[in-house]
Amino acid sequence: MTHLGIDAGGTSTRAVVLGSDGRCLGYGRSGSGNPISAGPAVAAASMRDAVQQALAAAGLPGSAVGSTSVAMAGGSRVAEDDEVAATLRGALVSATVPAALTVEPDLLALYFSGTHEASGYALVAGTGAAAVRVVDGEVAATCDGLGWLLGDDGSGFWIGREVVRAVSADLDGRGASTALTPLLLEAVPRAATSKAEPLAPGAVQHPALRHLVRELYAVPPVHLARFAPLAFAAVATVDDAVAADIIARAGLALTNTLAATLLPDLDGPVVLGGSVLVHQAAVTHLVRASLEHAGRSLPIHVVEDGLVGAAVLALRRSGVAVDATTFATVTESLARLR
Amino acid sequence: MTHLGIDAGGTSTRAVVLGSDGRCLGYGRSGSGNPISAGPAVAAASMRDAVQQALAAAGLPGSAVGSTSVAMAGGSRVAEDDEVAATLRGALVSATVPAALTVEPDLLALYFSGTHEASGYALVAGTGAAAVRVVDGEVAATCDGLGWLLGDDGSGFWIGREVVRAVSADLDGRGASTALTPLLLEAVPRAATSKAEPLAPGAVQHPALRHLVRELYAVPPVHLARFAPLAFAAVATVDDAVAADIIARAGLALTNTLAATLLPDLDGPVVLGGSVLVHQAAVTHLVRASLEHAGRSLPIHVVEDGLVGAAVLALRRSGVAVDATTFATVTESLARLR
Repeated sequence: MTHLGIDAGGTSTRAVVLGSDGRCLGYGRSGSGNPISAGPAVAAASMRDAVQQALAAAGLPGSAVGSTSVAMAGGSRVAEDDEVAATLRGALVSATVPAALTVEPDLLALYFSGTHEASGYALVAGTGAAAVRVVDGEVAATCDGLGWLLGDDGSGFWIGREVVRAVSADLDGRGASTALTPLLLEAVPRAATSKAEPLAPGAVQHPALRHLVRELYAVPPVHLARFAPLAFAAVATVDDAVAADIIARAGLALTNTLAATLLPDLDGPVVLGGSVLVHQAAVTHLVRASLEHAGRSLPIHVVEDGLVGAAVLALRRSGVAVDATTFATVTESLARLR
Repeated sequence: MTHLGIDAGGTSTRAVVLGSDGRCLGYGRSGSGNPISAGPAVAAASMRDAVQQALAAAGLPGSAVGSTSVAMAGGSRVAEDDEVAATLRGALVSATVPAALTVEPDLLALYFSGTHEASGYALVAGTGAAAVRVVDGEVAATCDGLGWLLGDDGSGFWIGREVVRAVSADLDGRGASTALTPLLLEAVPRAATSKAEPLAPGAVQHPALRHLVRELYAVPPVHLARFAPLAFAAVATVDDAVAADIIARAGLALTNTLAATLLPDLDGPVVLGGSVLVHQAAVTHLVRASLEHAGRSLPIHVVEDGLVGAAVLALRRSGVAVDATTFATVTESLARLR
């Protein structure tokens, strides 16, 4: 019997077809598969596209698939929303997949991308940030993931917001001078033009600041996440103190979110994912150091995305016991396909 | 000759008719006069309404008015925006006012509500927060006032946002327990209902937290400003440590904003306004203490709104020198009318 794992992300959707022994047979990749941000129709089309690529690569018809697991942000929320779930289910089942389909929280798939162990922890910091405790293969507790306004402490949005506020305070005379300022003005094109304009006599506000206000209020707040990499660049290139402070506070916030899910008597692997943790060793290092400081010597695994976990969940949901050997087969055979 | 001062706020618009000697002759009050939040048509109607009340109370026709000053948030921005300025100007001039009309920054009117001195400082903390340096009767420098996303440090929005984030962290297990939690759940009605629901076995998120997320993302972010008073209530009633920390940081931020406008060789009064500074002695006290700590013994005046200043500006713009005596006449005669 073959199985199908789908990792439906906001930027891209990945699918893999695999056997019950964990051997991956075909891989596919397409656009946004998040029904909340991209809409159910686009998300369903992305998933169909990725699945058809994976099936074609494996040389198998959809009818060969025995179980499918789709991992997505707000997985449980989607499952509760009948209309969205029905659209996705209908689109996938009719097009390619005749059998059982489960929608899984993206954090559970992220967790199982790093380990075969049934219990442990996962921490993600991409645009948003959240942690989960996994017990016996299911999410038992979740922390943060409350979105940009109420939470997501230490996330890409959080860091990007701190960057634009630090630059605003610098240009405004309220805050310390920072290397983030020229970096941000270069990243916000129309503001860059005004950088050269001198502060006119009698002008009460820096022209670059007026441009920033105009440009940054014109986009949805979550777009500020795209300025997070500027903080890492400012530390890497000129060891900027303002940027280093932002990153240190992000690391502290993420550590705090993870810590809230830890149980003293539940040892297990800690799986880290999301662009902030995958690409920024500084933040990962802070999380690692704080675990050691707390006397918890838990193995840490950093994973690129949730596709391995979606495949593992497809196996688990159809009753296949995923041990260390099967897990290694999934990761190694998938790595050869991508 | 008579003059007209209008203080056009987001919540209400106030108008006063006064003589060149500073004696206020009529007062009127109506709804929102902010063309950015309420729209130019509503703002113009509110202003006309307040002006007609003031003229009727004074027993004078609009043709008797020699000069008009309108104070509003983003005063200079409105003046630059030809369409909005033209609508306001057209509506006021045709209905009631035949003579010169100037649009003034609300912070300048706030400043002149507290003093007749031509140079000094003003700090406002309402929904937003900003400071200005006034030199020779004009705004010479401004700090913050950058809106909820990029600035407004220490404002009502800033405090309200910290309140909802502290409560989210409390319910989430990431943050300290705080008296703000029951206060906020009571202030957000549908969340209050869920407070009684016990955390079901297997549930991964507190039901009150899910309700907060649902309710608070459904309103514009600036609405969080209405939760700022909860921080003051939590300190006043149970000396809550989390709330006290929020207020202390707000005071520090506002002090920092004011400090950025201070010149070492420019002594002058400091005028404070806006609901956070008018109604919360704790924050005003922090600002006062920091000025003393910095060795600046500047007189501090707390004012309710910008109406006195709008009247003072109407006099100044038509060449009337406003000295201490005239200023006292304006404040005392206006107090008797309201």
